[in-house]
Amino acid sequence: MQFPSRLIEHAVEEISKLPGIGKKTALRLVLHLLKNDVAVSESLANSISRLRQEIQYCEQCHNIADGPQCTICANPRRQHQLICVVEDLPDVLAIENTGQYYGGYHVLGGIISPIDGVGPDELQIESLVNRVAKPDSEIEEVILALSPTMEGDTTAFYLTKKLHPYNVKISAIARGVPIGGELEYADEITLGNSILRRRNYENEH
Amino acid sequence: MQFPSRLIEHAVEEISKLPGIGKKTALRLVLHLLKNDVAVSESLANSISRLRQEIQYCEQCHNIADGPQCTICANPRRQHQLICVVEDLPDVLAIENTGQYYGGYHVLGGIISPIDGVGPDELQIESLVNRVAKPDSEIEEVILALSPTMEGDTTAFYLTKKLHPYNVKISAIARGVPIGGELEYADEITLGNSILRRRNYENEH
Repeated sequence: MQFPSRLIEHAVEEISKLPGIGKKTALRLVLHLLKNDVAVSESLANSISRLRQEIQYCEQCHNIADGPQCTICANPRRQHQLICVVEDLPDVLAIENTGQYYGGYHVLGGIISPIDGVGPDELQIESLVNRVAKPDSEIEEVILALSPTMEGDTTAFYLTKKLHPYNVKISAIARGVPIGGELEYADEITLGNSILRRRNYENEH
Repeated sequence: MQFPSRLIEHAVEEISKLPGIGKKTALRLVLHLLKNDVAVSESLANSISRLRQEIQYCEQCHNIADGPQCTICANPRRQHQLICVVEDLPDVLAIENTGQYYGGYHVLGGIISPIDGVGPDELQIESLVNRVAKPDSEIEEVILALSPTMEGDTTAFYLTKKLHPYNVKISAIARGVPIGGELEYADEITLGNSILRRRNYENEH
Protein backbone atom coordinates (compact mmCIF):
# COMPACT_ATOMS: atom_id res chain seq x y z
CA MET A 1 0.00 0.00 0.00
CA GLN A 2 1.24 3.47 -0.93
CA PHE A 3 0.46 6.52 1.18
CA PRO A 4 0.56 10.15 0.08
CA SER A 5 2.01 11.15 3.44
CA ARG A 6 4.91 9.80 5.46
CA LEU A 7 3.07 10.70 8.67
CA ILE A 8 0.20 8.42 7.68
CA GLU A 9 2.57 5.71 6.54
CA HIS A 10 4.45 5.83 9.82
CA ALA A 11 1.28 5.81 11.94
CA VAL A 12 -0.19 2.89 9.98
CA GLU A 13 3.08 1.00 10.40
CA GLU A 14 3.17 1.56 14.15
CA ILE A 15 -0.51 0.75 14.73
CA SER A 16 -0.37 -2.40 12.60
CA LYS A 17 2.40 -3.73 14.87
CA LEU A 18 -0.31 -4.31 17.49
CA PRO A 19 -1.57 -7.89 17.66
CA GLY A 20 -4.65 -8.59 15.54
CA ILE A 21 -4.48 -5.26 13.72
CA GLY A 22 -3.54 -5.36 10.05
CA LYS A 23 -2.65 -2.54 7.68
CA LYS A 24 -6.25 -2.03 6.55
CA THR A 25 -7.58 -1.73 10.09
CA ALA A 26 -4.66 0.52 11.02
CA LEU A 27 -5.49 2.80 8.10
CA ARG A 28 -9.13 2.92 9.17
CA LEU A 29 -8.03 4.00 12.66
CA VAL A 30 -5.67 6.60 11.22
CA LEU A 31 -8.45 8.06 9.06
CA HIS A 32 -10.70 8.14 12.12
CA LEU A 33 -8.06 10.07 14.08
CA LEU A 34 -7.55 12.50 11.20
CA LYS A 35 -11.29 13.21 11.05
CA ASN A 36 -11.46 14.00 14.76
CA ASP A 37 -10.09 16.78 16.92
CA VAL A 38 -6.41 17.07 17.82
CA ALA A 39 -7.48 16.49 21.43
CA VAL A 40 -8.67 12.95 20.62
CA SER A 41 -5.29 11.90 19.22
CA GLU A 42 -3.39 13.69 21.97
CA SER A 43 -5.41 12.01 24.67
CA LEU A 44 -4.88 8.58 23.09
CA ALA A 45 -1.15 9.12 22.53
CA ASN A 46 -0.74 10.44 26.05
CA SER A 47 -2.52 7.50 27.70
CA ILE A 48 -0.38 5.01 25.74
CA SER A 49 2.83 6.81 26.60
CA ARG A 50 1.98 7.17 30.30
CA LEU A 51 0.75 3.57 30.56
CA ARG A 52 4.09 2.01 29.86
CA GLN A 53 6.30 4.67 31.45
CA GLU A 54 4.49 5.03 34.75
CA ILE A 55 3.27 1.50 35.39
CA GLN A 56 4.73 -0.21 38.43
CA TYR A 57 4.52 -3.63 39.98
CA CYS A 58 3.16 -4.18 43.46
CA GLU A 59 6.06 -4.93 45.81
CA GLN A 60 3.99 -7.54 47.61
CA CYS A 61 1.97 -9.46 45.01
CA HIS A 62 3.65 -8.33 41.73
CA ASN A 63 0.31 -7.34 40.31
CA ILE A 64 0.33 -4.21 38.19
CA ALA A 65 0.03 -1.01 40.20
CA ASP A 66 0.10 2.77 39.95
CA GLY A 67 2.39 3.01 42.97
CA PRO A 68 4.54 0.69 45.12
CA GLN A 69 1.42 -1.20 46.27
CA CYS A 70 -1.54 -2.36 44.14
CA THR A 71 -5.12 -1.39 44.92
CA ILE A 72 -5.93 -4.95 46.02
CA CYS A 73 -3.07 -5.27 48.54
CA ALA A 74 -3.81 -1.75 49.78
CA ASN A 75 -7.50 -2.50 50.31
CA PRO A 76 -8.10 -3.28 54.03
CA ARG A 77 -11.51 -4.81 53.19
CA ARG A 78 -9.96 -7.69 51.20
CA GLN A 79 -9.40 -10.99 53.01
CA HIS A 80 -5.63 -11.01 53.21
CA GLN A 81 -5.59 -14.50 54.79
CA LEU A 82 -6.28 -15.77 51.28
CA ILE A 83 -3.77 -15.62 48.41
CA CYS A 84 -4.69 -16.61 44.90
CA VAL A 85 -1.63 -17.59 42.84
CA VAL A 86 -2.00 -16.79 39.13
CA GLU A 87 0.20 -16.85 36.07
CA ASP A 88 -0.24 -13.28 34.90
CA LEU A 89 -2.29 -10.08 34.93
CA PRO A 90 -5.13 -11.25 32.63
CA ASP A 91 -5.88 -13.99 35.16
CA VAL A 92 -6.20 -11.41 37.96
CA LEU A 93 -8.61 -9.42 35.80
CA ALA A 94 -10.60 -12.56 34.92
CA ILE A 95 -10.95 -13.57 38.59
CA GLU A 96 -11.76 -10.01 39.70
CA ASN A 97 -14.52 -9.87 37.11
CA THR A 98 -16.22 -12.92 38.57
CA GLY A 99 -16.98 -10.82 41.65
CA GLN A 100 -16.63 -14.05 43.69
CA TYR A 101 -13.20 -13.54 45.23
CA TYR A 102 -12.24 -11.10 47.96
CA GLY A 103 -8.75 -12.27 48.89
CA GLY A 104 -5.31 -11.17 47.70
CA TYR A 105 -3.18 -12.35 44.80
CA HIS A 106 0.30 -13.42 43.92
CA VAL A 107 1.27 -12.95 40.27
CA LEU A 108 4.00 -15.39 39.21
CA GLY A 109 4.76 -13.55 35.97
CA GLY A 110 4.69 -16.79 33.99
CA ILE A 111 4.59 -20.52 34.41
CA ILE A 112 7.26 -23.21 34.66
CA SER A 113 7.93 -24.33 31.11
CA PRO A 114 11.23 -26.09 30.36
CA ILE A 115 10.48 -25.97 26.60
CA ASP A 116 10.35 -22.16 26.71
CA GLY A 117 13.32 -22.04 29.06
CA VAL A 118 11.26 -20.73 31.97
CA GLY A 119 12.42 -22.22 35.26
CA PRO A 120 11.27 -21.48 38.83
CA ASP A 121 13.97 -18.82 39.23
CA GLU A 122 12.45 -16.68 36.49
CA LEU A 123 9.16 -16.53 38.35
CA GLN A 124 7.99 -14.81 41.54
CA ILE A 125 8.09 -18.08 43.49
CA GLU A 126 10.68 -17.18 46.10
CA SER A 127 8.76 -14.04 46.98
CA LEU A 128 5.61 -16.15 47.40
CA VAL A 129 7.40 -18.52 49.76
CA ASN A 130 8.79 -15.51 51.67
CA ARG A 131 5.30 -14.04 52.01
CA VAL A 132 4.01 -17.32 53.47
CA ALA A 133 7.13 -17.91 55.63
CA LYS A 134 7.18 -14.47 57.28
CA PRO A 135 6.75 -14.85 61.04
CA ASP A 136 3.94 -12.27 61.09
CA SER A 137 2.23 -13.75 58.02
CA GLU A 138 -1.55 -13.74 58.22
CA ILE A 139 -1.88 -16.06 55.20
CA GLU A 140 -4.02 -19.10 55.93
CA GLU A 141 -4.73 -20.48 52.47
CA VAL A 142 -2.97 -20.40 49.11
CA ILE A 143 -5.32 -21.04 46.16
CA LEU A 144 -3.55 -22.22 43.02
CA ALA A 145 -5.45 -20.76 40.07
CA LEU A 146 -3.23 -22.03 37.26
CA SER A 147 -4.32 -23.19 33.82
CA PRO A 148 -5.20 -26.91 33.62
CA THR A 149 -2.26 -27.62 31.30
CA MET A 150 0.91 -29.63 31.74
CA GLU A 151 2.87 -26.45 32.57
CA GLY A 152 0.19 -25.35 35.02
CA ASP A 153 0.22 -28.72 36.74
CA THR A 154 4.04 -28.74 36.89
CA THR A 155 4.04 -25.29 38.47
CA ALA A 156 1.31 -26.29 40.93
CA PHE A 157 3.28 -29.38 41.93
CA TYR A 158 6.46 -27.34 42.43
CA LEU A 159 4.63 -24.72 44.50
CA THR A 160 2.98 -27.38 46.65
CA LYS A 161 6.38 -28.85 47.46
CA LYS A 162 7.84 -25.43 48.24
CA LEU A 163 4.93 -24.39 50.46
CA HIS A 164 4.58 -27.72 52.21
CA PRO A 165 6.86 -26.88 55.19
CA TYR A 166 4.68 -23.94 56.17
CA ASN A 167 1.42 -23.92 58.00
CA VAL A 168 -0.88 -22.99 55.12
CA LYS A 169 -3.72 -24.78 53.43
CA ILE A 170 -3.07 -25.26 49.72
CA SER A 171 -6.05 -25.56 47.42
CA ALA A 172 -6.64 -25.46 43.68
CA ILE A 173 -9.55 -24.12 41.65
CA ALA A 174 -12.17 -26.72 40.73
CA ARG A 175 -11.98 -28.45 37.36
CA GLY A 176 -14.94 -29.99 35.67
CA VAL A 177 -17.65 -29.49 33.11
CA PRO A 178 -18.13 -25.70 32.58
CA ILE A 179 -21.42 -24.34 33.92
CA GLY A 180 -23.88 -23.99 31.05
CA GLY A 181 -21.86 -26.47 28.99
CA GLU A 182 -23.51 -29.48 27.40
CA LEU A 183 -22.31 -32.76 28.89
CA GLU A 184 -22.15 -34.52 25.53
CA TYR A 185 -19.75 -31.86 24.16
CA ALA A 186 -17.33 -31.90 27.10
CA ASP A 187 -13.98 -33.47 26.20
CA GLU A 188 -13.39 -36.91 27.65
CA ILE A 189 -10.56 -35.87 29.99
CA THR A 190 -12.62 -33.12 31.59
CA LEU A 191 -15.67 -35.36 31.84
CA GLY A 192 -13.67 -38.32 33.21
CA ASN A 193 -12.02 -36.05 35.77
CA SER A 194 -15.34 -34.59 36.81
CA ILE A 195 -16.60 -38.09 37.60
CA LEU A 196 -13.45 -39.06 39.52
CA ARG A 197 -13.55 -35.82 41.51
CA ARG A 198 -17.29 -35.89 42.09
CA ARG A 199 -18.61 -34.05 45.11
CA ASN A 200 -21.08 -35.03 47.77
CA TYR A 201 -24.28 -33.48 46.49
CA GLU A 202 -26.15 -33.53 49.79
CA ASN A 203 -23.45 -31.59 51.65
CA GLU A 204 -23.56 -28.78 49.14
CA HIS A 205 -27.30 -28.38 48.92
CA MET B 1 -14.70 -4.44 34.06
CA GLN B 2 -12.57 -3.42 37.01
CA PHE B 3 -8.88 -2.66 36.67
CA PRO B 4 -6.24 -2.73 39.39
CA SER B 5 -4.58 0.35 37.89
CA ARG B 6 -5.98 3.70 36.78
CA LEU B 7 -3.30 3.88 34.08
CA ILE B 8 -4.64 0.68 32.53
CA GLU B 9 -8.23 1.80 32.95
CA HIS B 10 -7.50 5.10 31.24
CA ALA B 11 -5.57 3.50 28.36
CA VAL B 12 -8.33 0.91 27.80
CA GLU B 13 -10.90 3.69 27.78
CA GLU B 14 -8.98 5.76 25.24
CA ILE B 15 -8.17 2.83 22.94
CA SER B 16 -11.74 1.51 23.01
CA LYS B 17 -12.94 4.87 21.67
CA LEU B 18 -11.46 3.86 18.32
CA PRO B 19 -14.01 2.46 15.86
CA GLY B 20 -14.36 -1.32 15.91
CA ILE B 21 -12.31 -1.73 19.09
CA GLY B 22 -14.17 -2.82 22.22
CA LYS B 23 -12.99 -2.98 25.82
CA LYS B 24 -11.75 -6.56 25.52
CA THR B 25 -9.63 -5.84 22.45
CA ALA B 26 -8.37 -2.63 24.05
CA LEU B 27 -7.29 -4.58 27.11
CA ARG B 28 -5.50 -7.12 24.92
CA LEU B 29 -3.59 -4.28 23.23
CA VAL B 30 -2.76 -2.71 26.61
CA LEU B 31 -1.39 -6.03 27.91
CA HIS B 32 0.65 -6.35 24.72
CA LEU B 33 2.14 -2.88 25.25
CA LEU B 34 2.90 -3.66 28.90
CA LYS B 35 4.73 -6.83 27.90
CA ASN B 36 6.92 -5.01 25.40
CA ASP B 37 9.67 -2.41 25.70
CA VAL B 38 8.99 1.20 26.60
CA ALA B 39 10.27 2.07 23.12
CA VAL B 40 7.36 0.26 21.45
CA SER B 41 4.75 2.30 23.33
CA GLU B 42 6.68 5.52 22.89
CA SER B 43 7.01 5.00 19.17
CA LEU B 44 3.29 4.26 18.84
CA ALA B 45 2.24 7.23 20.99
CA ASN B 46 4.61 9.51 19.15
CA SER B 47 3.38 8.51 15.69
CA ILE B 48 -0.26 9.06 16.74
CA SER B 49 0.50 12.43 18.26
CA ARG B 50 2.56 13.65 15.29
CA LEU B 51 0.02 12.32 12.77
CA ARG B 52 -2.75 14.65 13.82
CA GLN B 53 -0.62 17.61 14.83
CA GLU B 54 1.62 17.80 11.79
CA ILE B 55 -0.71 16.70 9.02
CA GLN B 56 -1.48 19.32 6.37
CA TYR B 57 -3.71 19.53 3.35
CA CYS B 58 -2.35 20.06 -0.14
CA GLU B 59 -3.09 23.64 -1.21
CA GLN B 60 -3.90 22.48 -4.71
CA CYS B 61 -5.86 19.23 -4.48
CA HIS B 62 -6.74 19.13 -0.73
CA ASN B 63 -5.29 15.68 -0.43
CA ILE B 64 -3.48 14.98 2.81
CA ALA B 65 0.16 16.10 2.78
CA ASP B 66 3.25 16.47 4.92
CA GLY B 67 3.84 19.99 3.62
CA PRO B 68 1.96 22.62 1.60
CA GLN B 69 1.89 20.33 -1.45
CA CYS B 70 1.08 16.62 -1.55
CA THR B 71 3.48 14.07 -3.05
CA ILE B 72 1.13 13.49 -6.00
CA CYS B 73 0.85 17.17 -7.00
CA ALA B 74 4.60 17.58 -6.46
CA ASN B 75 5.44 14.61 -8.68
CA PRO B 76 6.42 15.88 -12.17
CA ARG B 77 5.97 12.39 -13.61
CA ARG B 78 2.22 12.34 -12.95
CA GLN B 79 -0.11 13.35 -15.80
CA HIS B 80 -1.36 16.68 -14.51
CA GLN B 81 -3.73 17.11 -17.49
CA LEU B 82 -5.95 14.57 -15.70
CA ILE B 83 -7.80 15.29 -12.45
CA CYS B 84 -9.70 12.62 -10.61
CA VAL B 85 -12.39 14.08 -8.34
CA VAL B 86 -13.03 12.00 -5.21
CA GLU B 87 -15.03 12.34 -2.03
CA ASP B 88 -12.27 11.78 0.50
CA LEU B 89 -8.83 10.42 1.31
CA PRO B 90 -9.74 6.68 1.38
CA ASP B 91 -10.83 7.00 -2.24
CA VAL B 92 -7.43 8.44 -3.21
CA LEU B 93 -5.74 5.52 -1.49
CA ALA B 94 -8.07 3.01 -3.16
CA ILE B 95 -7.38 4.44 -6.63
CA GLU B 96 -3.65 4.74 -5.97
CA ASN B 97 -3.57 1.09 -4.96
CA THR B 98 -5.01 -0.01 -8.31
CA GLY B 99 -1.75 1.14 -9.90
CA GLN B 100 -3.84 2.11 -12.97
CA TYR B 101 -3.99 5.86 -12.58
CA TYR B 102 -1.17 8.35 -13.07
CA GLY B 103 -3.03 11.67 -13.03
CA GLY B 104 -3.74 14.15 -10.24
CA TYR B 105 -6.63 14.35 -7.78
CA HIS B 106 -9.09 16.77 -6.30
CA VAL B 107 -10.44 15.83 -2.89
CA LEU B 108 -13.89 17.34 -2.25
CA GLY B 109 -13.83 16.57 1.46
CA GLY B 110 -17.34 15.12 1.33
CA ILE B 111 -20.33 14.83 -0.92
CA ILE B 112 -23.47 16.94 -1.45
CA SER B 113 -26.04 15.55 0.97
CA PRO B 114 -28.97 17.80 1.93
CA ILE B 115 -30.08 15.30 4.60
CA ASP B 116 -26.73 15.68 6.40
CA GLY B 117 -26.75 19.43 5.78
CA VAL B 118 -23.77 19.29 3.41
CA GLY B 119 -24.16 21.76 0.56
CA PRO B 120 -21.75 22.65 -2.25
CA ASP B 121 -20.23 25.49 -0.19
CA GLU B 122 -18.95 23.04 2.46
CA LEU B 123 -16.96 21.18 -0.17
CA GLN B 124 -13.86 22.00 -2.22
CA ILE B 125 -15.93 22.67 -5.33
CA GLU B 126 -15.04 26.32 -5.89
CA SER B 127 -11.34 25.48 -5.72
CA LEU B 128 -11.89 22.75 -8.33
CA VAL B 129 -13.61 25.21 -10.67
CA ASN B 130 -10.79 27.70 -10.06
CA ARG B 131 -8.18 25.05 -10.94
CA VAL B 132 -9.96 24.33 -14.21
CA ALA B 133 -10.70 27.99 -14.96
CA LYS B 134 -7.15 29.27 -14.45
CA PRO B 135 -5.83 30.77 -17.72
CA ASP B 136 -2.64 28.69 -17.53
CA SER B 137 -4.51 25.51 -16.57
CA GLU B 138 -3.15 22.36 -18.16
CA ILE B 139 -6.19 20.28 -17.16
CA GLU B 140 -7.78 18.46 -20.11
CA GLU B 141 -10.03 15.94 -18.40
CA VAL B 142 -11.89 15.76 -15.09
CA ILE B 143 -12.77 12.21 -14.05
CA LEU B 144 -15.63 11.99 -11.57
CA ALA B 145 -14.87 9.05 -9.29
CA LEU B 146 -17.80 9.38 -6.89
CA SER B 147 -19.74 6.57 -5.25
CA PRO B 148 -22.69 5.29 -7.31
CA THR B 149 -25.23 6.56 -4.75
CA MET B 150 -27.87 9.26 -4.90
CA GLU B 151 -25.53 11.73 -3.17
CA GLY B 152 -22.69 10.79 -5.52
CA ASP B 153 -24.91 11.30 -8.55
CA THR B 154 -26.20 14.64 -7.23
CA THR B 155 -22.63 15.84 -6.68
CA ALA B 156 -21.57 14.62 -10.13
CA PHE B 157 -24.52 16.43 -11.73
CA TYR B 158 -23.66 19.65 -9.85
CA LEU B 159 -20.00 19.45 -10.81
CA THR B 160 -20.86 18.80 -14.45
CA LYS B 161 -22.98 21.95 -14.53
CA LYS B 162 -20.25 24.00 -12.82
CA LEU B 163 -17.49 22.76 -15.13
CA HIS B 164 -19.55 22.96 -18.32
CA PRO B 165 -18.45 26.53 -19.29
CA TYR B 166 -14.78 25.48 -19.38
CA ASN B 167 -12.94 23.62 -22.05
CA VAL B 168 -12.49 20.29 -20.24
CA LYS B 169 -13.70 16.81 -20.96
CA ILE B 170 -15.78 15.42 -18.09
CA SER B 171 -15.91 11.67 -17.60
CA ALA B 172 -17.06 9.27 -14.90
CA ILE B 173 -15.71 5.92 -13.78
CA ALA B 174 -17.38 2.90 -15.36
CA ARG B 175 -20.21 1.16 -13.55
CA GLY B 176 -21.16 -2.43 -14.13
CA VAL B 177 -20.77 -5.97 -12.92
CA PRO B 178 -17.60 -6.21 -10.79
CA ILE B 179 -14.78 -8.19 -12.39
CA GLY B 180 -14.74 -11.69 -10.90
CA GLY B 181 -18.36 -11.27 -9.78
CA GLU B 182 -20.99 -13.84 -10.69
CA LEU B 183 -23.64 -12.48 -13.04
CA GLU B 184 -26.47 -14.22 -11.23
CA TYR B 185 -25.56 -12.54 -7.95
CA ALA B 186 -25.28 -9.00 -9.33
CA ASP B 187 -28.12 -6.75 -8.15
CA GLU B 188 -30.72 -5.93 -10.80
CA ILE B 189 -29.90 -2.20 -10.99
CA THR B 190 -26.21 -2.86 -11.64
CA LEU B 191 -26.98 -5.60 -14.12
CA GLY B 192 -29.67 -3.57 -15.88
CA ASN B 193 -27.31 -0.60 -16.11
CA SER B 194 -24.51 -2.76 -17.45
CA ILE B 195 -26.79 -3.86 -20.31
CA LEU B 196 -27.97 -0.33 -21.10
CA ARG B 197 -24.37 0.97 -21.05
CA ARG B 198 -22.93 -1.96 -22.97
CA ARG B 199 -19.70 -1.37 -24.88
CA ASN B 200 -18.65 -2.30 -28.35
CA TYR B 201 -16.73 -5.52 -27.77
CA GLU B 202 -14.83 -5.48 -31.06
CA ASN B 203 -13.33 -2.03 -30.46
CA GLU B 204 -11.88 -3.05 -27.13
CA HIS B 205 -10.33 -6.34 -28.13
